[in-house]
Amino acid sequence: MSLDRLIEGIARTNNPTVAGLDPKLEYIPDCILKPYIDQYGRTLEAAAEAIFTYNQGLIDALCDIVPAVKPQCAYYEMYGWQGVRALERTIRYAQEKGMFVITDGKRNDIGSTMDAYAAAHLGVTDVAGNGIEAFGGDALTVNGYLGSDGIDPVIKVCRQRDKGMFVLVKTSNPSSEELQDQAINEEPVYLMMGRQCEKWGEQLPGKYGYTGVGAVVGATWPQQLSELRYELPHTFFLVPGYGAQGGSAESVAGAFDKRGLGAIVNSSRAILCAWKKEGCPGEDYAQAARREALRMRDAIAAVIPVITLE
Amino acid sequence: MSLDRLIEGIARTNNPTVAGLDPKLEYIPDCILKPYIDQYGRTLEAAAEAIFTYNQGLIDALCDIVPAVKPQCAYYEMYGWQGVRALERTIRYAQEKGMFVITDGKRNDIGSTMDAYAAAHLGVTDVAGNGIEAFGGDALTVNGYLGSDGIDPVIKVCRQRDKGMFVLVKTSNPSSEELQDQAINEEPVYLMMGRQCEKWGEQLPGKYGYTGVGAVVGATWPQQLSELRYELPHTFFLVPGYGAQGGSAESVAGAFDKRGLGAIVNSSRAILCAWKKEGCPGEDYAQAARREALRMRDAIAAVIPVITLE
Repeated sequence: MSLDRLIEGIARTNNPTVAGLDPKLEYIPDCILKPYIDQYGRTLEAAAEAIFTYNQGLIDALCDIVPAVKPQCAYYEMYGWQGVRALERTIRYAQEKGMFVITDGKRNDIGSTMDAYAAAHLGVTDVAGNGIEAFGGDALTVNGYLGSDGIDPVIKVCRQRDKGMFVLVKTSNPSSEELQDQAINEEPVYLMMGRQCEKWGEQLPGKYGYTGVGAVVGATWPQQLSELRYELPHTFFLVPGYGAQGGSAESVAGAFDKRGLGAIVNSSRAILCAWKKEGCPGEDYAQAARREALRMRDAIAAVIPVITLE
Repeated sequence: MSLDRLIEGIARTNNPTVAGLDPKLEYIPDCILKPYIDQYGRTLEAAAEAIFTYNQGLIDALCDIVPAVKPQCAYYEMYGWQGVRALERTIRYAQEKGMFVITDGKRNDIGSTMDAYAAAHLGVTDVAGNGIEAFGGDALTVNGYLGSDGIDPVIKVCRQRDKGMFVLVKTSNPSSEELQDQAINEEPVYLMMGRQCEKWGEQLPGKYGYTGVGAVVGATWPQQLSELRYELPHTFFLVPGYGAQGGSAESVAGAFDKRGLGAIVNSSRAILCAWKKEGCPGEDYAQAARREALRMRDAIAAVIPVITLE
């Protein structure tokens, strides 16, 4: 009922990073894409098959050194139900390889509708008495604009099924300031939302001091990462914005506690496109991704305390 | 590049309401569900086929009297990619029958990820130079917590493809007060978000005075509906929370302008479950839905000005 499995994966691999699986077609080498286009034409089926094959290669190359993957729903939805099927297959394949899956859907709604999202992504769907996992991720990102009515249904499923969630607190993008930095009762909205995470998390306590209700805080805001690490001692952070968006190892260091825990840093483009950046053939994309993931692991290890569960 | 097509549909049917297609299996009559269970077993396939058949019946019964449908993504995602396929089929079927489709996904993200959501739900996905509509809705609900970085990509697609959007402003649920009612610079968050809609909407002007950037405002907040109608003269409202959540015709009257325009009111459960409430056989579910839709149309007509585009 928490993020303990994620934290144990981080300790096992000695690596507080997650690989974002945002499979734009332009990232996928021709050696993977072209055979499917030849077989299915320029269709959503071809794209979806290429995406799954590409993801399989990445997962195989990363699963012993990276504890988690974060598929971004948007890049699957854009390929229709065929793409959504590739998302489902990707989630299951990553879990078979022992990885923790954070489904990045930023879902939000209320009451029985939020029950439906929680069932879809973390829980079980009932069909005439038969319980079926629809997508089966391990944690889901959610948006808290609607308040507790949108969070409680997810907490319920997390408690029943040992899952976790990450609430948007301070997002990595420049215009996050429009609402998130505004002051309510002399505190910024992001801090108010963060305090809500602490409160919601009381219902999902974890073994290592962090609850099942994490927070999304961007790598582009080093000062806020440090501030929030201090203010929210039981809230685990998912940190996007490393690499392409400008976040560095130094800028995320403040997100971690004295045990080297407290955060997991996402990288998508740098890992997915490492083969292009290295100038190596498309056939080597997975090994290039592995080399980049190791560089990222080492860069972060250099600026945070040694990771320990004690 | 606006919500003009929706407004014209409202004027044509003389009906400012939208039928929410939230197809929980418990709403679906046995005469529809059971044959699919017999054929496919208690599977997601069976559920998805039943949902699509159920929706077809509703759309056939409503398309001449109701201008729009609002499928709620959560109730399709919970049935996996098979359910998402039923969503896609439902959207196309409703459009074939001349209905405007508001895809209720409350999607949100930034930059190229939001581009992907916009392409998925309103735009076109490129596969090796071939442009394909993945879901093809007419408008999408979105969550503005991330600021303009999450809205601009949708505006771009709306402009290119004559589509619209609705941003969450003041949601119908009780805990919307936790963030949305808090004061920033002496104005509540919902009003600040509403003013952003007016600003974003300047890029998508419409023929009838309303832009392509609408706002979601709950039927449960009559005072705020009137306040926002006054403060946001160019922003069209999508009003959930009528019926089951407690909103009445009287409580939504303030959302409309002097031409009977300015808002569309959603009803899901009351329409979908009319056959149960009326105590009629499942076979008559679609006609029961039609009767309920007519009652709702007449109840709202009684409290708003006569609808005119002039």
